[in-house]
Amino acid sequence: MIESFIRSNFFPIKKNLCLNELLPLLGDMVIKSNISDDFLIQDISSLTSIRNNSILFIEKKVDLLNHNKKKLCLISNIDNTDDFNYIQVKNVSESYNLILNNFYYHEDSSNFPDEYTSINGSHVSKYSQIHKSVNLGKNSVIGRGVSIGKNSIIKNNVVIKNSIIGNNVVVCDNTSIGTTGFGFDLNKRGSTYLNPQIGIVYIDNNVHIGSNCTIDRGKIDTTYIGKNSMIDNMVHIAHNVHIEDNACIAAQTGISGSVFIGKNSTIGGQSGFAGHIKIGDNVIVAAKSGVTKSISDNSIVAGFPATDIKEWKKSIIRQKKNGHK
Amino acid sequence: MIESFIRSNFFPIKKNLCLNELLPLLGDMVIKSNISDDFLIQDISSLTSIRNNSILFIEKKVDLLNHNKKKLCLISNIDNTDDFNYIQVKNVSESYNLILNNFYYHEDSSNFPDEYTSINGSHVSKYSQIHKSVNLGKNSVIGRGVSIGKNSIIKNNVVIKNSIIGNNVVVCDNTSIGTTGFGFDLNKRGSTYLNPQIGIVYIDNNVHIGSNCTIDRGKIDTTYIGKNSMIDNMVHIAHNVHIEDNACIAAQTGISGSVFIGKNSTIGGQSGFAGHIKIGDNVIVAAKSGVTKSISDNSIVAGFPATDIKEWKKSIIRQKKNGHK
Amino acid sequence: MIESFIRSNFFPIKKNLCLNELLPLLGDMVIKSNISDDFLIQDISSLTSIRNNSILFIEKKVDLLNHNKKKLCLISNIDNTDDFNYIQVKNVSESYNLILNNFYYHEDSSNFPDEYTSINGSHVSKYSQIHKSVNLGKNSVIGRGVSIGKNSIIKNNVVIKNSIIGNNVVVCDNTSIGTTGFGFDLNKRGSTYLNPQIGIVYIDNNVHIGSNCTIDRGKIDTTYIGKNSMIDNMVHIAHNVHIEDNACIAAQTGISGSVFIGKNSTIGGQSGFAGHIKIGDNVIVAAKSGVTKSISDNSIVAGFPATDIKEWKKSIIRQKKNGHK
Repeated sequence: MIESFIRSNFFPIKKNLCLNELLPLLGDMVIKSNISDDFLIQDISSLTSIRNNSILFIEKKVDLLNHNKKKLCLISNIDNTDDFNYIQVKNVSESYNLILNNFYYHEDSSNFPDEYTSINGSHVSKYSQIHKSVNLGKNSVIGRGVSIGKNSIIKNNVVIKNSIIGNNVVVCDNTSIGTTGFGFDLNKRGSTYLNPQIGIVYIDNNVHIGSNCTIDRGKIDTTYIGKNSMIDNMVHIAHNVHIEDNACIAAQTGISGSVFIGKNSTIGGQSGFAGHIKIGDNVIVAAKSGVTKSISDNSIVAGFPATDIKEWKKSIIRQKKNGHK
Repeated sequence: MIESFIRSNFFPIKKNLCLNELLPLLGDMVIKSNISDDFLIQDISSLTSIRNNSILFIEKKVDLLNHNKKKLCLISNIDNTDDFNYIQVKNVSESYNLILNNFYYHEDSSNFPDEYTSINGSHVSKYSQIHKSVNLGKNSVIGRGVSIGKNSIIKNNVVIKNSIIGNNVVVCDNTSIGTTGFGFDLNKRGSTYLNPQIGIVYIDNNVHIGSNCTIDRGKIDTTYIGKNSMIDNMVHIAHNVHIEDNACIAAQTGISGSVFIGKNSTIGGQSGFAGHIKIGDNVIVAAKSGVTKSISDNSIVAGFPATDIKEWKKSIIRQKKNGHK
Repeated sequence: MIESFIRSNFFPIKKNLCLNELLPLLGDMVIKSNISDDFLIQDISSLTSIRNNSILFIEKKVDLLNHNKKKLCLISNIDNTDDFNYIQVKNVSESYNLILNNFYYHEDSSNFPDEYTSINGSHVSKYSQIHKSVNLGKNSVIGRGVSIGKNSIIKNNVVIKNSIIGNNVVVCDNTSIGTTGFGFDLNKRGSTYLNPQIGIVYIDNNVHIGSNCTIDRGKIDTTYIGKNSMIDNMVHIAHNVHIEDNACIAAQTGISGSVFIGKNSTIGGQSGFAGHIKIGDNVIVAAKSGVTKSISDNSIVAGFPATDIKEWKKSIIRQKKNGHK
């Protein structure tokens, strides 16, 4: 459901691409291709949510047999690829950049098209939908495609772009939502090599978000914050993070890309989470923890690297004792 | 002195409440009550600063005998309550929300009344008082009730609400002051359950506050920063924190709710403080410390959990030695 | 090259000072002086970049013999000073404040002169130079002297002051660049004692800077970020930091004053760096590290205090084992 957003509402399409136009576009980058179909490419997909008539960018070998959507895969290694359209390329990340920048407008390339009107001292895109019951503060910016539900309160100097905001959501001052994820190939650095981020942020109903937070939009899909979640000040939530309902996250915590956090989490301040890990339901993370691995349901962890809180407390006592030997 | 602010300057009163109106308002929430008086309720109080004709919200048993102010206590357990007005309720936190939302306008509920004029590219409430010598930058927002003293410098994109700012105070860019504290019952999550925060921030003379900081207002009383304090960038100061004079707090430090810090503190960057602890005078906290307990005067601490810095250094050396066994 | 900026483009000169005017200005502060020359003072210098006809402020004894620029040294101890102009003062930091505040306008003193025009909903100084190809968002502030190169993208609610920004630089929302460094004498606290910060920020070509970051300008020289560097959200970079090309710095990292970071660094999130240390080339710093000492080229470090990552991993395993004894 949260993945069903219409991408072009946020990222206008520069031009429609036919599958056969891709080879000239990619040029020298192409090693081999088995293109036979000629469907119109309508979207980009990630592996976790494959859309029909879309391009997938695949760094490692994966099993796509059970996906019957029409798709084209850009891959670096061919291996068992008879059963789908593919283009083998020298560098998947660079191909991604080339195609996306050709296909979509986004805010990290020049000339992103948007038009604003001034409402109550804030700038609001003509292509956004703000419910009339929303309280909008001063000096905020609401970008193209954004929708904001009933009775939500957007305070001052808030930037919201590329986002769907539910009902009764409160966003406090100087927070940035829908900002650009930190996604790129470590071997190719610099602003011009940043992977276009064409996903969104979806904030569900009754969420509170503090001041001076940053929530990056998904790379291709959605960064999600579940119902009734409470986010304190200066929390950073990276791209593709998925936080289930009733989260409580204290100040200055940072959650790296693609982390999944189960429902009813309680997370102390200044905690950090390594990327791509899964936190179970009802987990409590003590303040200043560094969570480096996935955590099972109902765990209570502390320390860095985070471990069971009882073990952590014992290790603290042990260290103290050693000091008194 | 710092607690003597006039609440309605910041949080306009929706309606005056007579004590006897409360029972119908609370409805099913009421278990028992001994209301006999019928004073007009004029304010809300915390236990640390009881105002006359006010309501107190008491979660745990406390001794109120030595307070001779007229008051009404909302309590969850009755025990030795003969000597004051009380209403016993099922849930104190929910009663607090119900009464406060009925009694006061605040920025986390709809339709907070304020009116702004534009001064030098910033939005300034008609109900604020800014000394004519103040330097006010661009895109800042100064909200209802705020006062700013002589020769203070408020830079750009700063949000100041619910605050009293002294003389010669400097507030750097993108900082949020007087924002909403992170206060709620962990068992009832979601923006609509957030406890109304109707206290203020009081920043005393000659304080420097860096960029992209957040200072939350008190829940009922005051978040206070003492004279001549220096706060670096991206520091988070939670609700009800009290920092005495001459503090020096380096970047990215986070101070949890209701912490008290004595005078002449020196606090390294990325430090964190657990809530409700008391730090003595002349304390030095090394960078990246996690302070979990109260600290006595003249201490120097480091590490997480923070301990005497000499002990901490010894433990580091011990760990290294163990590595070379 | 990066030190060759024209200071008065950013910090207008209040009045030209002749060397002989300094003694009356400093008044009681002066202990002894050997002034014989009478050159016009044209600038202020740090020891790392001595400019001709400038004043140096020297706290400790240094060897200046090999600098043949015309200079005046403000010093606290005389010792071997026959060969250059000096004024011995009681307190170098206070003398610095007195002279700088007399000599230059800067944003932390009253009446800093600037004039703005409104461009696309942002405030842009008439004394700035923004290339016509720059994409400038809403509610941003571009201050006096700032220049921004070709095809750079400055998003919304960004504050840039006292900075030179190269080509293809992206600065995301709510970020503050060129803000005031946290520089002062720990014995003299309060906003009015803050040392005037009259250096700049220089961001080289193709740099990406995330949302809600702070980059402080140099005290006298330049805070520098090298080509093709990638800075994630909520990163704090203090005054005088020098980061070589191709840095990759993850979210919520803090880099203290005067740190030097070699080329091709990769730095995990929530890391912290003590001031005045030197990080070599090709260094990897794991997330949540606390780097307290200089690090040689090609190192990989982790933990707090940061150590070789293999040692750190061993110590974690050792601690776990001890827990199971």
